[in-house]
Amino acid sequence: MNNFDFRNPTRLVFGKGSIARLGELVPADRRIMLTFGGGSVKQNGVYDQVRKALGERATVEFWGIEPNPSVETLRKAVTLGREQQTDFLLAVGGGSVIDGTKLISAGLLYNGDPWELVLKGTADKTVPLGTVLTLPATGSEMNNGAVISRHETQEKYPFFSNYPVFSILDPETTFTLPPRQIACGLADTFVHVMEQYMTVPGVSRLMDRWAEGILSTLIEIAPRIREDGLNYDLMADFMLSATMGLNGFIAMGVPEDWTTHMIGHELTALHGLTHGATLAIVYPGTLRALREQKREKLLQYGQRVWNMTKGTEKERIDRAIEKTEEFFRSLGLATRLGEAGIGEETVREIERRFEERGVAFGEGGNVTGKTAAAILRNCR
Amino acid sequence: MNNFDFRNPTRLVFGKGSIARLGELVPADRRIMLTFGGGSVKQNGVYDQVRKALGERATVEFWGIEPNPSVETLRKAVTLGREQQTDFLLAVGGGSVIDGTKLISAGLLYNGDPWELVLKGTADKTVPLGTVLTLPATGSEMNNGAVISRHETQEKYPFFSNYPVFSILDPETTFTLPPRQIACGLADTFVHVMEQYMTVPGVSRLMDRWAEGILSTLIEIAPRIREDGLNYDLMADFMLSATMGLNGFIAMGVPEDWTTHMIGHELTALHGLTHGATLAIVYPGTLRALREQKREKLLQYGQRVWNMTKGTEKERIDRAIEKTEEFFRSLGLATRLGEAGIGEETVREIERRFEERGVAFGEGGNVTGKTAAAILRNCR
Repeated sequence: MNNFDFRNPTRLVFGKGSIARLGELVPADRRIMLTFGGGSVKQNGVYDQVRKALGERATVEFWGIEPNPSVETLRKAVTLGREQQTDFLLAVGGGSVIDGTKLISAGLLYNGDPWELVLKGTADKTVPLGTVLTLPATGSEMNNGAVISRHETQEKYPFFSNYPVFSILDPETTFTLPPRQIACGLADTFVHVMEQYMTVPGVSRLMDRWAEGILSTLIEIAPRIREDGLNYDLMADFMLSATMGLNGFIAMGVPEDWTTHMIGHELTALHGLTHGATLAIVYPGTLRALREQKREKLLQYGQRVWNMTKGTEKERIDRAIEKTEEFFRSLGLATRLGEAGIGEETVREIERRFEERGVAFGEGGNVTGKTAAAILRNCR
Repeated sequence: MNNFDFRNPTRLVFGKGSIARLGELVPADRRIMLTFGGGSVKQNGVYDQVRKALGERATVEFWGIEPNPSVETLRKAVTLGREQQTDFLLAVGGGSVIDGTKLISAGLLYNGDPWELVLKGTADKTVPLGTVLTLPATGSEMNNGAVISRHETQEKYPFFSNYPVFSILDPETTFTLPPRQIACGLADTFVHVMEQYMTVPGVSRLMDRWAEGILSTLIEIAPRIREDGLNYDLMADFMLSATMGLNGFIAMGVPEDWTTHMIGHELTALHGLTHGATLAIVYPGTLRALREQKREKLLQYGQRVWNMTKGTEKERIDRAIEKTEEFFRSLGLATRLGEAGIGEETVREIERRFEERGVAFGEGGNVTGKTAAAILRNCR
């Protein structure tokens, strides 16, 4: 096992009716900015629950944090928060709202353009942040990461700052989600786990088992959720899996990959695709392109997650990759670039961008622009 | 899934060489009390590493926190800490040293006898506490629990107060542990997980998988550790499993049992048995006595942890219980009361104590004195 330094201070308040506890979770004397996405929380009752729980607290609302939150939008929130002397942020929404609010939280205490913080990748000072999660997917509710886009330049990068002080997870908030958002959330969670798991075997038996535990849970619940998206226990399992998939709990002392995410971010930046949808396309390509490097772990994954015990090693690896792609397809997601109308031009542009930035991703640090292009050509 | 409220703020600093980081982890201006057990840390080099890392810091040392730490000993530490105006505690040792230091941490800020806090079960105010763990077993390094004994009255009760602000886990510190301590630590970890898992199925798919993941890891590493207790990766897996077994990570939204622990504490209080050794004796008896109540979960456990797929349900449950007892025996531990020289008198005394306190343990709240006696008669 590798040495590691773990800490996750976020308080999780989980279960039906939990939004009513906001009053005890937000300190009484704070000037709160509530942040929202496009307005679905007004239709599904979450907004009313939040307002009721906050009672007469001093609040200001910022609406319109979009999917793949942009610095252009977030700058406006920072300006509003400064005017209002905001000293507590409450993000109500999915991963995009929470991610965006993390940059607001840092931007409020930074003298300069928030995009500078994104390029720097981190922030020293932040305003405390709580969340009410409405879409299980990104894990942002219990980690210190965010991904921020800049439309002006078609860029999208990760940024690390503060953990939410609390996150409220009420599975009932998911009952009104469109099926495609649920599908993308399941794919996002699945790939988050794979990015931390599908590297080399034998580094930590326990972390391997826990990653496999989340994958097996997702595989078990996904078809049932498709049948019955109003089943509380299924959605609770999904919501908890999404949070546990990217809060550091399965990353202790193990190498990580994140190749697929880096390529997926480029597809979103260039074509506006939903994050989870990009992962469903790229991930099978990553496995096909890097099957030799990931050979041992693919065999373990095939055996433990997909119960494969028969056939040659080559056959089992083939089937493990096929099963992964089939899982994404069973969610109703596309798994090939062509289905999203993306061609060779984009492959070359992403190769160029990686080369220009001089980056190399993956557990082996060997995914340069050339390898990224090879992965994308395996997604055609 | 049940509603839950989770938070675990402890920072884990894990890996070889980590003790050297103490200097950055303990705030520079604190008056530190170091707490120790019987002195093994002087033989294995841990003491020297701690002193070197702390350099010229203001410290006082308290030695002699015994296995099953007693309020009689801890009162002395509280007196010393008050004299020295201690405002930071550093526990260096196993679960007993850490547990005891939690009571010191609360006792320093309490006007009264620390045993009152134990009877109350909790404390409002505590002095910050860091730990250097040397024996994986209790999980105390990453939870807010402690178990404190009182020799004067042969009592032993759990007590809940503060999470360590940090815990340093260096698997190399385990290389000098006596085999019996390792065996008891493995048994303790195994039963911690079972107390949170072996209740009813279907409450949380993910928590079930994670509990099974720890159990499978322990079953895989235990015989290998017996062969090679100097294997870093094995001891790292053990150390991480012990911490993850009782830090709340597998308890989210699921019912818990703790019957075996409550009975085991009585055996320690009455006969001085090591905690892990009491669990190895009582746990198979708990399963035999409550096999109907735990029927569904025993079948799941047999299948997923012990790979049992054949035979009638009765046969599979029989084998799952046998396998559990065999696991403890493979560690070299006794699994019957008679082997520890404990007879019917103790059974009746524990029944009397439970009835007198009017308690009822277990996920069903049905383990009264009578059931405890039935469990113990299943351990003969």
